[in-house]
This record gives sequence, structure tokens and C-alpha cells, in this order.
Amino acid sequence: MAALPGEFELIRRYFAPLAAQAPGALALQDDVCTIAPSPGHDLVLTVDALTAGVHFLRNDPPDLIARKMLRVNLSDLAGKGATPLGYLMTTAFDPATDEVWVARFVEGLALDQAEFGLALLGGDTTATPGPMALTATLIGTVPRGRGLRRNGARPGDRILVTGTIGDGYFGLAASRNELNNLSHAELDYLAGRYRLPQPRVAFGAALVARGLGRAGMDVSDGLAADLAHMCEASGCGARVATPRVPLSGAVAALLADEPDLLPAAIAGGDDYEVLLAAAPDQVPAILETARETATPIAEIGVFTTGQDLLFLDADNRPVALPKAGFTHF
Amino acid sequence: MAALPGEFELIRRYFAPLAAQAPGALALQDDVCTIAPSPGHDLVLTVDALTAGVHFLRNDPPDLIARKMLRVNLSDLAGKGATPLGYLMTTAFDPATDEVWVARFVEGLALDQAEFGLALLGGDTTATPGPMALTATLIGTVPRGRGLRRNGARPGDRILVTGTIGDGYFGLAASRNELNNLSHAELDYLAGRYRLPQPRVAFGAALVARGLGRAGMDVSDGLAADLAHMCEASGCGARVATPRVPLSGAVAALLADEPDLLPAAIAGGDDYEVLLAAAPDQVPAILETARETATPIAEIGVFTTGQDLLFLDADNRPVALPKAGFTHF
Repeated sequence: MAALPGEFELIRRYFAPLAAQAPGALALQDDVCTIAPSPGHDLVLTVDALTAGVHFLRNDPPDLIARKMLRVNLSDLAGKGATPLGYLMTTAFDPATDEVWVARFVEGLALDQAEFGLALLGGDTTATPGPMALTATLIGTVPRGRGLRRNGARPGDRILVTGTIGDGYFGLAASRNELNNLSHAELDYLAGRYRLPQPRVAFGAALVARGLGRAGMDVSDGLAADLAHMCEASGCGARVATPRVPLSGAVAALLADEPDLLPAAIAGGDDYEVLLAAAPDQVPAILETARETATPIAEIGVFTTGQDLLFLDADNRPVALPKAGFTHF
Repeated sequence: MAALPGEFELIRRYFAPLAAQAPGALALQDDVCTIAPSPGHDLVLTVDALTAGVHFLRNDPPDLIARKMLRVNLSDLAGKGATPLGYLMTTAFDPATDEVWVARFVEGLALDQAEFGLALLGGDTTATPGPMALTATLIGTVPRGRGLRRNGARPGDRILVTGTIGDGYFGLAASRNELNNLSHAELDYLAGRYRLPQPRVAFGAALVARGLGRAGMDVSDGLAADLAHMCEASGCGARVATPRVPLSGAVAALLADEPDLLPAAIAGGDDYEVLLAAAPDQVPAILETARETATPIAEIGVFTTGQDLLFLDADNRPVALPKAGFTHF
């Protein structure tokens, strides 16, 4: 295996082209990048650290590692209604990293830069004895003071969620060949949902542009845990009608076979959808915004006074959930 | 050894207090932080990734690891004339990390937050099988378009550098007990300069506020390599009078004994001083700014046409340098 080129050569050959469209990146030839925010806008920043063997597998396709790294952060921005601007990245490559790996990783970055309007703004390229460690700091903008936060939900507000829930959790199981009784197409769909999240960036930005939504965040630790976070930050409770929780065909097929898996769908992580609190009179405009941005959405419940978070079945009986949320810690 | 508390508890107990002064950090309870830049200002960002065993020693005092992590990035900001605002941090703790370690690490962060006017704005706390990996993304502000860059030097501009050169290189040697013939005080001084850089933040910000300096960067890869970087970016050469390069008493004593160590002082890294290009008529105001901010400074040479970078001794003979610069890659 050929050794990696040196730091400066890696930057020149692979990373500088990712920064070519951003004047503030200074072609990655300075020690810093500069960002000139639009007047009347806040910057929104989020960072994730990924370690091989913990957050991704060392043998995962490099382009997918790159894209998932960007997308989990883009999902955080989407949950706030921010428009992505760019990112800083650190790469600590292990000794087994060769130039082919880096080239494929960079291909993945380039694909999602184009899809989401991002540019690489800066970073740091180092070596580690292992495991490989990556971080991405994503930067977005929102009109000043209008970014969605966790703490804006009020009793009586409606709970909405985009996409489908549980795909991430069962997608991981599918990619480990732990699921039976599903078609190849269903297994592929679920594994794909796990491998490559679809952050709801356009929908989130359109919401904020229209002043819609009282609280927002992305669903990454699982619907149950993240709704609990929103309730805690907002000082209220919530009641969810589980029959209204949107499920993909694949998960619906799984649950038809094994209804006991419902709690796993609700508590499992890695869905990367948007969770919203909305005043009742905002709901029609939010549904319209979702339609215009081709974003599936469902109204699944209501915020309540008190602190209880209830997931109710079709007979209004509480669904028992496993220990809420899955973290990588 | 007690296991670490979980991620949320670590944040609540140790990291949230570091964010208490920054409303945009949202108490580290949201997925993002928000920054509302002052009108007419650019943001300047820089990130470093540090791996145990590569960039620091696992047994180094945790408070010093924290402070050095912030300071090497603060030095990048100082070289651009940016005023520090805050930082995002990722911590991947290895299994040997206990709560005492984290508490001391946080003490170091708190000390330098107070000294440099920083707040923790956000981050990600994860676990790694090892080695420990840390990153810090530092954010500063400059009046729009006035941040110093590498590429502004012109032939005839004077070369200035703050502080003393070579302390970082010989400080590493001192901390490894590789130096003889120095007093305990001199060894302590050098080791301290290596362990805890003094980024020239006030000086850099004052320069930019006064519109002084045509190019700027910090000296971290060594005076020779960083001056070469500035020359390359600016499309010019440079001539340095090595007798004018400012040396600490300790390094001067070393070189008096072993004159052959001069190239190591000039080429060695980790000084974290500011390197400037200045039009000749800016020099008096820069010296006055240095005096007001209690920053030692020296004029050491001149930028030239062409591409040659010459370090000349007292008899105007070129000093032969080792392969320029030391990187951690």
C-alpha cells in the first residue's frame, strides 16, 4: 500500500478543490478561513466527531462515510431551519489510509457539497496511530433571531415529524443481516436509510423563511428521546398517537409481523428527520411548505401541560418504551 | 478507576458552566450554537485536531493540554489580528479517562477562557477505544475585510516578529532533558515556553484596529518555514539578518556555547509568535502598538523581489538551514 502524500500535498491535491468556490476559504492556504455573514443573519454552528469502530466501520465505503458525516450535521441545521453555508473538517488518518481511500472520501464530500450548496472552508489534516478520527463543523445561516430552538413548544401546540420513523434503527439491523421476513427491496431500502440520511434542509429553511414552527430539532437519538428533550427544554409534556407515527412500507411490514417491535421503532435512533412544535393555526401552512419542498410530514400528537410524555396505542393505552434513546457514548 | 459519567451528565456538570456566559451556546442544551456577528465584521475560524501520543503526551497535565489546545488556535487568530469570541470543542475520551482528568482539563479551559475572553459555544463528547482525540474550532472577529493574510507582503516591506524565536524548539528539548549547560531557571523557562504558548492576541487585534500590517500569520512551523509560506503566498522573497532575530536569554546562552544550533532555532517550530510584513512607514506605529500591548517585537529583515529566502549572518553569509519546518504529519 502506498503511503499517503504529506499534509500540504494532500491539501493541494484533494482538499483545495473542495474549497475553490468559497473565497473565504483562502484556498486553504492560510491558517484560517473568513466568513462574512449576510446582514441581519445569525450563524448556526454544529460539530460532530466520528471515530472508526464507534460511529462508522473502518471498511464502510469512504464516500458514504464522508456523506454521512456531512448529513448528520446538515440534519442538525435542518432542525433549526438554517441554510447550509460551509464546513470545517479535521481528518486524523490511520496508517492504513491510502490515497485511493482519500480520493473516494473526497468524492463523497464533493457529491454532497453540490447537493446541499456547501463549500469546504478550512480544516486540519493529521495522522493518528489509529483509529481514524473525523470531525465536521457545519455552518449555516438563519434570519437573525429566527432559528428554531428546542425550547419553544407550548401546551396545545401540535407535534409534527417529517419522513418515516424507525428506518434508521431497523436499517442498522438490516445492514447487519439481522432481519428476516422482508424482501430484498425492503432490506435495501432500510439499509440505505441507515447509510445515507436525507436531511430535510430545504424544508427547514423554508419554514424559517416563513416564520413557521415554534420549536424544532432533528430526530437523531430516536423520536422518544428527542421529543423528551424538546418537552424538557420547553417545560411541557406531550401525547403521541402511535398509529399516526409515519412508517415506511418496510417498517410497517415488520410491525405487522411483530407488533412488539413498535417501541424499538419509536425509540431507535438515526432517523435524521425534523421534529416540530407548531401552533394549531400554523399547521396548514407547515403542511403546504412540506408539500412544496417534497417533504413527507405527519401530525402525530400534541404538547400538554405537565411533564408526562405518553405514547398511546389505538386504544389509548400507553406503549411501554425501552430506555429512551441510543447514544454513541 | 471510576468510569466517566454519561455524555449528558458530563456536559451538565463540566462543560455547561464553560458556556454560561454565551447566550448563543444555548446552555449546550440544543444541537447547535448561534453566533450573531457584529455589523461590519467578518468571522475568522480555525481548527486544530490533537491526538494523544502525536500532538501531546497522554500523561501531560490535563489543564495544560486544554490550555495549549486553545492557545495554538488563539495564536492563529492573533496572526490575523482577530479578536477571540468563542470555540467549539470535540472530545473523544479513551477508556482510561476518569472524572478527575476531565475536571482538571475543564479547569484549564476555564483559566484561558477568562484570560482571553472566550466562551465554549458547542461541541461533541464521545468515547474512543483510544488514543484520546481532541479538536477545537476557534472563532474570532475582525472588521470586515481587514483581517491580515499571508499574501499581502510586497518587496521593500519590513519583516517583524514578536517575542523570541527558538524557545519552542529548545523548550521541547529541555522538557525531554536533552539540554546541558543551562541553569535550572533557563531550563524551566524554555520548557514553560513549549508547554504554554503566549498567543499575541491583544497585539494582533490592536494592529488590525489601527489598519497596520500588510501581511500577518503566526509562527508555528518555525520562522524559516512560515516566512517561506508568507513569501510564497505574496510572490516575493525575503532577506533576514539573523543577528537581529530575537532570542531569549536561555537560547542566547545555548548559542553562545554552540553556535551551530542557530539553524535549529530559526527552523524549529512551536514558537507561536506573530510574523508581520509592514510597509516601511508603518513600522513606527507597529512598534508603538507593540509597546502599548507589552509585546516584545523586532524588525529582522526585508521582503525582496524574486523568490530567494536568505538568512544572513553578521558577515552577510547565508546560514544553511535544515529542511524547513516541522509538521506533525
